[in-house]
Amino acid sequence: MNLLYSLDLLGTAAFAASGALAGIRRDMDLFGVLVLGLVTATGGGTLRDLLLGDTPPFIFKDETYLYLSILVSLLVFVFHKHMDFLHHPLLYFDAIGLGTFVVIGTGKALDFRMGFIGSVMMGVMTATAGGMMRDVLSTQVPLVLQREVYASACLAGGVLLYLLHLTPLPRSWALLISALAVIVLRLLAIFYNWSLPRAAHDSNNR
Amino acid sequence: MNLLYSLDLLGTAAFAASGALAGIRRDMDLFGVLVLGLVTATGGGTLRDLLLGDTPPFIFKDETYLYLSILVSLLVFVFHKHMDFLHHPLLYFDAIGLGTFVVIGTGKALDFRMGFIGSVMMGVMTATAGGMMRDVLSTQVPLVLQREVYASACLAGGVLLYLLHLTPLPRSWALLISALAVIVLRLLAIFYNWSLPRAAHDSNNR
Amino acid sequence: MNLLYSLDLLGTAAFAASGALAGIRRDMDLFGVLVLGLVTATGGGTLRDLLLGDTPPFIFKDETYLYLSILVSLLVFVFHKHMDFLHHPLLYFDAIGLGTFVVIGTGKALDFRMGFIGSVMMGVMTATAGGMMRDVLSTQVPLVLQREVYASACLAGGVLLYLLHLTPLPRSWALLISALAVIVLRLLAIFYNWSLPRAAHDSNNR
Repeated sequence: MNLLYSLDLLGTAAFAASGALAGIRRDMDLFGVLVLGLVTATGGGTLRDLLLGDTPPFIFKDETYLYLSILVSLLVFVFHKHMDFLHHPLLYFDAIGLGTFVVIGTGKALDFRMGFIGSVMMGVMTATAGGMMRDVLSTQVPLVLQREVYASACLAGGVLLYLLHLTPLPRSWALLISALAVIVLRLLAIFYNWSLPRAAHDSNNR
Repeated sequence: MNLLYSLDLLGTAAFAASGALAGIRRDMDLFGVLVLGLVTATGGGTLRDLLLGDTPPFIFKDETYLYLSILVSLLVFVFHKHMDFLHHPLLYFDAIGLGTFVVIGTGKALDFRMGFIGSVMMGVMTATAGGMMRDVLSTQVPLVLQREVYASACLAGGVLLYLLHLTPLPRSWALLISALAVIVLRLLAIFYNWSLPRAAHDSNNR
Repeated sequence: MNLLYSLDLLGTAAFAASGALAGIRRDMDLFGVLVLGLVTATGGGTLRDLLLGDTPPFIFKDETYLYLSILVSLLVFVFHKHMDFLHHPLLYFDAIGLGTFVVIGTGKALDFRMGFIGSVMMGVMTATAGGMMRDVLSTQVPLVLQREVYASACLAGGVLLYLLHLTPLPRSWALLISALAVIVLRLLAIFYNWSLPRAAHDSNNR
């Protein structure tokens, strides 16, 4: 499905940019920026493939993802001072990546005949684990564990795809609808500044 | 062996509670608390299965572990202010989990014909790697690397099971004795506040 | 190839020593020091084997690496106050480990018919991922992402081996030449204090 592949590459580029920017913000050298770009863009799908036992992971079967991540990280490294005009488009591309990664992950888990929770987890992990690795390598508590309806949009999309997969709807429609649901939820969350509840916890004794 | 399975689920619940509490302490949102609960409870066994090449890992073959971890994390998220009465029982359940996870890990490694160090490592990893992942995701130096006779109890249990496996003792007895050894050692360590030696290191120049 | 195996063990010992020292510097107990020594020495190759789908990883097939890492970590734990005379030799052994790990990683990836970027990545990862795990477990931003021509020497060696592998040169020569290139680059980088460019980034707003 060519549309999905195009969206996948667009999302990969957006995730690589976010990783490279995190590396620059942490004063890493060129190699560090490359590693953070690569890990953010491809870490989630790589972990999914390891867990599914589908080795070597997708990035080594189609090196396009690796070349693209490296190219984007290099561009960010060189031009990051002149990227302000990209701030808004990157938010959209990131949301598109999120939706695409979720449906690719959950879809692949369904092909591997995983159960309900497993399939949803694979989708959420594909979309969020790369960002978690980026944050761990920058010694920060992963952003996705703390803020906004980011992971929840992924959860919703994974559940929706699982349900649609039980209906006679063609797979390509199910993928498209679920990806759109994630993207719309994510953009609404940014627009209205939604957030998940936090446990009321006495912050004096941290 | 039904007793071992019951103890395994009890330990899973205790580990999930410890993970969820760590998430609440670090001000994570609901998703973060769920992830920390899941990772703490199932991360060690998942890493073991990845290393053994037994994919997908056990949690995707029997989703009970996932449902249980999510349920416990949700309960902790909602009721964590009223859990003081659970403080002591949780220490016991945690020790039971520790013993059970060690013998399941080392036992599985023996089934896969691993050597001595490999089998013991698999047991220790099954019991401790989930907690390490919890700490890394909370950007804290893993507790298990710093304090008390926690990992050492696991080491002792793994070695004991390896030795018993060389004798004609039935496997179920070997598992039970080794798990008990870990649990007793761990509870004695808590009770007497034992700790491992630390290298005498000049803490001025850290 | 016996020379390569000897160099591999020498590098493993040097990496284990660096991990154990990091554990001591972070006030870890004996178990923590052992884990950091093990992870630093064997983590890179283990991750490589997981990604290649070659499970269980090499350390479980030849437990020499595990025994050696544990022995070295124990020695460092006991004698670390009297190791100053080892400071210089350790830098050389570390460089030898770096070169050996790169060519072993890239060489194995070539045997698994990986592409260009994949093969080079496998070499770099074999040499650097263990150190990254050491730093993440010590909650520090991985050193290799921040300083000096460490990873770049690995990159150069991986690329060189890939290119030599396209020529009719015997494999053992290609491995030796590429490993030497990494070692020499690394020692020159230490000697002349080379470093990679950093993105000019306004450090006020970090």
